[in-house]
Amino acid sequence: MNFLILAAGTRNKVVQYFKKTFDEVGTVVATDASELGPAIYEADKHYIVPHITAPGYIDVILDICKKEKIDGVLSLIDPELSLLAQHEEEFKAVGTTVIGSSYDLCEMALDKMQMYEWLKSHGYNCARSWMNKEEFYKAVEDGEVTYPVFVKPYRGSASISISKVYDKETVDLLFAHSKDLMIQEFLNGQEIGADVYIDMISGEVVSIFTKKKILMRAGETDKAVSFKDPELFKLIEKFVLEAGYRGQIDIDIFDINGQYYISEVNPRFGGGYPHAFEAGCNHMRLILNNLNGVANQKNIGAYEEGIYMMKYNEVKIVRK
Amino acid sequence: MNFLILAAGTRNKVVQYFKKTFDEVGTVVATDASELGPAIYEADKHYIVPHITAPGYIDVILDICKKEKIDGVLSLIDPELSLLAQHEEEFKAVGTTVIGSSYDLCEMALDKMQMYEWLKSHGYNCARSWMNKEEFYKAVEDGEVTYPVFVKPYRGSASISISKVYDKETVDLLFAHSKDLMIQEFLNGQEIGADVYIDMISGEVVSIFTKKKILMRAGETDKAVSFKDPELFKLIEKFVLEAGYRGQIDIDIFDINGQYYISEVNPRFGGGYPHAFEAGCNHMRLILNNLNGVANQKNIGAYEEGIYMMKYNEVKIVRK
Repeated sequence: MNFLILAAGTRNKVVQYFKKTFDEVGTVVATDASELGPAIYEADKHYIVPHITAPGYIDVILDICKKEKIDGVLSLIDPELSLLAQHEEEFKAVGTTVIGSSYDLCEMALDKMQMYEWLKSHGYNCARSWMNKEEFYKAVEDGEVTYPVFVKPYRGSASISISKVYDKETVDLLFAHSKDLMIQEFLNGQEIGADVYIDMISGEVVSIFTKKKILMRAGETDKAVSFKDPELFKLIEKFVLEAGYRGQIDIDIFDINGQYYISEVNPRFGGGYPHAFEAGCNHMRLILNNLNGVANQKNIGAYEEGIYMMKYNEVKIVRK
Repeated sequence: MNFLILAAGTRNKVVQYFKKTFDEVGTVVATDASELGPAIYEADKHYIVPHITAPGYIDVILDICKKEKIDGVLSLIDPELSLLAQHEEEFKAVGTTVIGSSYDLCEMALDKMQMYEWLKSHGYNCARSWMNKEEFYKAVEDGEVTYPVFVKPYRGSASISISKVYDKETVDLLFAHSKDLMIQEFLNGQEIGADVYIDMISGEVVSIFTKKKILMRAGETDKAVSFKDPELFKLIEKFVLEAGYRGQIDIDIFDINGQYYISEVNPRFGGGYPHAFEAGCNHMRLILNNLNGVANQKNIGAYEEGIYMMKYNEVKIVRK
């Protein structure tokens, strides 16, 4: 069983975990657009590939799959998820399974407004959002929402150009200077991260790891502690099955006075996944089982509470 | 030989390197104000201590030195460097050598305006700086400096509240809203980092490691490549001896069209030091020699060029 990790970037831990899990059974190959992506050097073999928007990119990846006899593939960056889903059949034709969700779900994860509409219409607590600022002002007047709010591009990664805004004047100013903005209610509560694996064969939610993010006074968010709440597991399972995700996903959730709000979904391994792995939730093993045609048993919450994770900088050294 | 690292924070690599170097000869102890500082868990032993501004803080540290029979001590955070220098004699009285520079040099490193005046008066290239905005406007009129410039607190750490400013109106606005600001010329060139060890016994510059910082399109600065230039080594040696630094220091330098500009000095192990260590510049060994009463031989540039360093996130797991 050989595995391919696309756009490995700085996600050395994820490549290390795949290598550890596939050690006895096959080869782990990684790609990056740059020779300075440190994670490729953790793999058994690596390729420098064009940028995902370059013409012929997908053919380069399919060629690697054929040459290296790749059984499973996934990407670690958002814009590539839809691309893999789109070409799932071509990968299948060369014997490679794409570990990931459907094209529509990958696209929805990129579009915060579409995600909001879906969550709202399916009855999940979530941050109220507006594309139309006049409708937002009316909601303020009606007492439905209060400042501060976030103003951000409705499409776009993580925290790029997100403004926390305290008044109408600033909302007007931002909307006058940028297109495609949305206004989102500010959720003020305990931030939670969930790492979830949905079996590629059975479609069941087989593993959930949840952690509370710890905010430090200096603004660091790179610490967390594992916890368990059966109610939260139930909510995650219901949401994930209803939406139809597959493979690895990462969910951001807020706990506001005992109510869980779903904030964001990344249908891939998130930056906080090492916490789950180190606590015993080896999702690489679940992927390996699926590639072997074995459906995983449901084993939700298979970890201990009170396991603290703290990030620090490691260095990869390459001589050229 | 036992060593104490204060305010270890997230500097796990520095603690690991001390532990590796002192492994056969003694114990490495680390402190932090928080149990969630991951680096303390790399040491043989650790203490949670009050914040450095708390009354009696220095007595707590002196007690640890006595109890653990500490031979050498240093801190990894700027505000503590002056404090250690100030209490050097008290540490000496309990048998502990402070590895670091004098009080005046530690203070100068915190005060960008004082640093600028020193560099200018000693004839070193550096970014021109103004506390008085009218004098700055005159310099603009006279064609001595052009926008953009940096407006930042003249005292303060790294990149906290630094604005890149393109016009007079914004300079006026920032000065109207904040006190203790300075205006600094924007140096547009290749950024360089230097890790330097000045022997605590001989006062000689015994080791210099220099690297070019690699700016990625996404704005990441956490990659670098080692290089050597005898001219730069000469400049660094002259500057360091003239100023009188001791122990480990980290210097930020710009190469602007072949001219080196000194930008900033941190009289401690900097965040990029792991690159130097991994390339062969083990400054922990130099410290150990000094604690043993042995002056180190001058060995500047004892590393290879073209060694690339790329940072990534490692995790420390603690069960509670």
